[in-house]
Amino acid sequence: MSGPASDSGRPAVALIGGGRIGRIHAGNAAAHPALSLKYVIDPFGAAAAQLASRYGASATTLERALADPAVAGVIVASPTDQHLAQCLQAAAAGKAIFCEKPVDLSVERARSAAGALAGARLFLGFNRRFDPSFRALREKLQAGVIGSLETLHIISHDPAPPPVSYIKVSGGLFKDMTIHDFDVARWLLAEPVVEVYAMAACLVDPAIGAADDIDTAKVLLRTASGRMALISNSRRSGYGYDQRIEAFGSGGSVRVDNLTATTVAVWGEEGATRAPFQNFFLERYAEAYRLEMDHFAAVLSGEEPSIRFTDGVQALELAEAAGRSHATGRPVALSGGA
Amino acid sequence: MSGPASDSGRPAVALIGGGRIGRIHAGNAAAHPALSLKYVIDPFGAAAAQLASRYGASATTLERALADPAVAGVIVASPTDQHLAQCLQAAAAGKAIFCEKPVDLSVERARSAAGALAGARLFLGFNRRFDPSFRALREKLQAGVIGSLETLHIISHDPAPPPVSYIKVSGGLFKDMTIHDFDVARWLLAEPVVEVYAMAACLVDPAIGAADDIDTAKVLLRTASGRMALISNSRRSGYGYDQRIEAFGSGGSVRVDNLTATTVAVWGEEGATRAPFQNFFLERYAEAYRLEMDHFAAVLSGEEPSIRFTDGVQALELAEAAGRSHATGRPVALSGGA
Amino acid sequence: MSGPASDSGRPAVALIGGGRIGRIHAGNAAAHPALSLKYVIDPFGAAAAQLASRYGASATTLERALADPAVAGVIVASPTDQHLAQCLQAAAAGKAIFCEKPVDLSVERARSAAGALAGARLFLGFNRRFDPSFRALREKLQAGVIGSLETLHIISHDPAPPPVSYIKVSGGLFKDMTIHDFDVARWLLAEPVVEVYAMAACLVDPAIGAADDIDTAKVLLRTASGRMALISNSRRSGYGYDQRIEAFGSGGSVRVDNLTATTVAVWGEEGATRAPFQNFFLERYAEAYRLEMDHFAAVLSGEEPSIRFTDGVQALELAEAAGRSHATGRPVALSGGA
Amino acid sequence: MSGPASDSGRPAVALIGGGRIGRIHAGNAAAHPALSLKYVIDPFGAAAAQLASRYGASATTLERALADPAVAGVIVASPTDQHLAQCLQAAAAGKAIFCEKPVDLSVERARSAAGALAGARLFLGFNRRFDPSFRALREKLQAGVIGSLETLHIISHDPAPPPVSYIKVSGGLFKDMTIHDFDVARWLLAEPVVEVYAMAACLVDPAIGAADDIDTAKVLLRTASGRMALISNSRRSGYGYDQRIEAFGSGGSVRVDNLTATTVAVWGEEGATRAPFQNFFLERYAEAYRLEMDHFAAVLSGEEPSIRFTDGVQALELAEAAGRSHATGRPVALSGGA
Repeated sequence: MSGPASDSGRPAVALIGGGRIGRIHAGNAAAHPALSLKYVIDPFGAAAAQLASRYGASATTLERALADPAVAGVIVASPTDQHLAQCLQAAAAGKAIFCEKPVDLSVERARSAAGALAGARLFLGFNRRFDPSFRALREKLQAGVIGSLETLHIISHDPAPPPVSYIKVSGGLFKDMTIHDFDVARWLLAEPVVEVYAMAACLVDPAIGAADDIDTAKVLLRTASGRMALISNSRRSGYGYDQRIEAFGSGGSVRVDNLTATTVAVWGEEGATRAPFQNFFLERYAEAYRLEMDHFAAVLSGEEPSIRFTDGVQALELAEAAGRSHATGRPVALSGGA
Repeated sequence: MSGPASDSGRPAVALIGGGRIGRIHAGNAAAHPALSLKYVIDPFGAAAAQLASRYGASATTLERALADPAVAGVIVASPTDQHLAQCLQAAAAGKAIFCEKPVDLSVERARSAAGALAGARLFLGFNRRFDPSFRALREKLQAGVIGSLETLHIISHDPAPPPVSYIKVSGGLFKDMTIHDFDVARWLLAEPVVEVYAMAACLVDPAIGAADDIDTAKVLLRTASGRMALISNSRRSGYGYDQRIEAFGSGGSVRVDNLTATTVAVWGEEGATRAPFQNFFLERYAEAYRLEMDHFAAVLSGEEPSIRFTDGVQALELAEAAGRSHATGRPVALSGGA
Repeated sequence: MSGPASDSGRPAVALIGGGRIGRIHAGNAAAHPALSLKYVIDPFGAAAAQLASRYGASATTLERALADPAVAGVIVASPTDQHLAQCLQAAAAGKAIFCEKPVDLSVERARSAAGALAGARLFLGFNRRFDPSFRALREKLQAGVIGSLETLHIISHDPAPPPVSYIKVSGGLFKDMTIHDFDVARWLLAEPVVEVYAMAACLVDPAIGAADDIDTAKVLLRTASGRMALISNSRRSGYGYDQRIEAFGSGGSVRVDNLTATTVAVWGEEGATRAPFQNFFLERYAEAYRLEMDHFAAVLSGEEPSIRFTDGVQALELAEAAGRSHATGRPVALSGGA
Repeated sequence: MSGPASDSGRPAVALIGGGRIGRIHAGNAAAHPALSLKYVIDPFGAAAAQLASRYGASATTLERALADPAVAGVIVASPTDQHLAQCLQAAAAGKAIFCEKPVDLSVERARSAAGALAGARLFLGFNRRFDPSFRALREKLQAGVIGSLETLHIISHDPAPPPVSYIKVSGGLFKDMTIHDFDVARWLLAEPVVEVYAMAACLVDPAIGAADDIDTAKVLLRTASGRMALISNSRRSGYGYDQRIEAFGSGGSVRVDNLTATTVAVWGEEGATRAPFQNFFLERYAEAYRLEMDHFAAVLSGEEPSIRFTDGVQALELAEAAGRSHATGRPVALSGGA
């Protein structure tokens, strides 16, 4: 199965959203040898026009883009509260979909859309799953290099907190930030999570607490067979973007460390200092975003999406459970697992 | 204040217990320029005699050793169930005491002895506090190098599980193994712990589960001000002794990594392989044990013990709280903090 | 000053050479937002046609490409013995030039062309100068982070030797492989080299010795002020591509280590094993090749080339001096410095 | 064969020299379970008396110590110009000898003593050979882990230069500092060195140059079979004591890195900073000095010395060859190898 082709002979895609992540996807789609970026859609017409012109695409509306039979796929990089509606629209138009995380901030709403999206060729963009180091870690796990996986530590600390205005519409730490780590945990644990306990606090910035959110959390997950995972989150590390995983198994451990921009080190009286860690996700996951676009091109050529809408729903269920655990001070059991 | 002197002019000490850790302390006491090892006490007379003769000491009974006015201090390295009684005896005889962890397996019993031991010159041997790397980490924290401490990760995985016969009398994972980490957490958090949550399982060896114990645990602690600590334990790492700490603060992070026996690395087709981690506590904490003996010598010269009996009781309270949390599946609040 | 534009509005370039490095440059030129790849020239017509069609370019002859006023620049990635003639032709046609190293295998010939090329906008592609880590090292040196540079170690070991058929036409180790390191040394020493001593041998493969070449060398350079540099070369490392630099100065040291494809590490009984080093130059210098093309685009827009033809001649002079040192067993003085 | 015993039943040793290294050996001999430190000999009577009293030994003269039949061995830690005479005296008295490096500053004198010392139980204290990491590296080489050894890099940079008064009597860089590295090279190359080339300069301190010495050197060695070694020396690193080895073989590489006092690292905005390297030889080789004393105790019990007087002479020959190479600007051939 393969999608319709643009004039260039390459399948055309439309991008919704000209913000930070939208611009990344625009560049990757435009540079991709098997894709052609045809449309950019953004309510801020000027932003859409500027981004479109940079890559020889046109600014338009979602309706028009969906009506164009040359458009094979839609990239949903809009604000979270529009994801579901746009996915449903694109799916109804028969387009393949590459949707940014999270699918929605409400488990209920997300679940209610699951039926309509079940048949869609929808690929959910959890960037960690495309990071070469995390992939290599998973391959080691699957190859049995450390025997049977027992426990997992996921460290995910941001360099610095976002503006409080963003925090207020973010859905909160668990749905906005930990959502990535819930997905990574599900991906690596390879078993349904049956219990969630979250210990969290506002330690970084009182304004975040005033906005009724937390900025620091330790979340424990447990699977049916007894595997355990820790997720450590902070909105501010003070040393760059900390994205590490340690997996402990019956025969050893496999781990991924942080990336530095260069391998330069300075040796002086005070010790040996390595280059700082890459600062944030646009650098740290640059390669992952390129590989996501590769995968979307493959989906447009008929490959099965590797991350489905339901993965997004289940990560959201874990986020909601973590929120309840934090609110009640108790572990939360997930009857069906997530 | 200074203790009585032996013939050599150095204060004499008596060692109770000729097992693995007793032999370490015997060697360190004998080699210490400011101490003289005079007696070794062990119910297995042959073991006591052999160890004593190796260092020019004598095998004897506790009663006789305590009756010898030349004996300034007693090292309690017997099985845990004898610690309390022997400490009380030694304290009654006016001797300084260097007692191995844990003080007892029962918080009740330990508390009931606290009064009688309050005035004793008792130093409790939590080896981690003497490890040069952990000490350096604490100095960095105290110097404010990472601003205000927010959270802590303590990784403490043994290379391989002890025999099940040992497990059965060990008091269980929390009192036998995590006890060290509870003390480290207390030492570094520098605030009373008010909440404990333990997620644990038997993943390593079913025989440990059959002995009603667990072998794998993730424990979360919270202090009154909101600081959080994770303790990760496993009875079997598969890659040597894993003893690491990461401290996250408002201005960065400070961490201690594992030690290797040498710095040799081999570069080959498969990658760069460093020497294995030091295998277990006798190597990893060899220097800490020497520094403990330095401190005991200082205590004999009048210095205040840096770790008191009450520290041992409070670590035990955390262990008991962790056990209750594991048993009930809920966080346990510590009214007074520990 | 800016070159002529292609239909796309971006300056057009012609690529000579469809081999391994030519294909890299083709991809980078085609993907570059400020360049358009218009022609591919290769005596193997089929190779040229295939490479050209992949990027929407045309296969043609050098004469026709140079006659096209739309062509602003020429990339010379042909076999070394054609570099000079093609550069002269392109320069005569007024085109900017991006020439691969080395400029030639003969210092005499290269020098004799220097006059004719003096006015050309010629940029010489020594990839190391564009590697982000090496660049960062040089910036540290220039910023005085280690005070005054005193000595330099350049480690440059290939993973495995090329076929002997290649060795025979390569010009020998010093002109083919060390040429890069001579340029790096010149770039970092920032002073003319006045003395060269080469200790070399055939240790890797007797067939290389039979072809009258060496495969292992330690070369020492000295500048007028007394700075010293070691270059270590081997045609076969047995552990991937070893590309490191250590610079020692009056106030410390700055160094660049090897790159690994991922940051995955496995901890097991035998030690901690990191992912292997990147295997060879196509991976190790992938980013450098992209940045070279960036620079060529800048040259087409009027920027001064950062590496000139004379840099190539001087690196060649060092290579020739090293050859003489190896042949005579004595250090070779460079009267004018190089 | 075993030496005479002291009152304690342990063989007695006499130490000549109460300077920095003498004090290290005194402590190690006194603490050694199989040795007894009986005498300390030093022309500065007060220094000898103070050191002796610290370990329950007596200050005396060499003559008296040698006349004491209880003395089984003599540790020669005096200034270099006395080594030979004292070794000869001790050998004549039938004592085993542990002599510090270098054996002398004159190859001629050293050679002329070789006959008289040939039968002595003399162990030469090249500390690097006892460093656990260097030993482990050699074991890897001998086990064939990297196939056949081809080349070697020995980095040996001091943290800071000694006083010029010391430089003046030191015999110069090659005999005072590089002497260690010459021995390490001989030990690892496992073949006679047939050629030496030294490029050297005074870059660190003009006062060293004024004293007719150099402070920075790169020395190349070659063996008969073509193995090559680089020795890099500097009297001042600016980052602590730099003691590394890299050995390159047909099947990979094995290396030893610097040691740090602790494993503490701080992660901050500027990067990740490890603890400084150990500052100098007293810390870096503390364990090596202990293991040297172990070996001397074994020699006293009849074991063959692992480093002979002739090893010291040959290291000295390499040092003299390096000096000639530096003076003449040419490689120096060693007819018989060293």
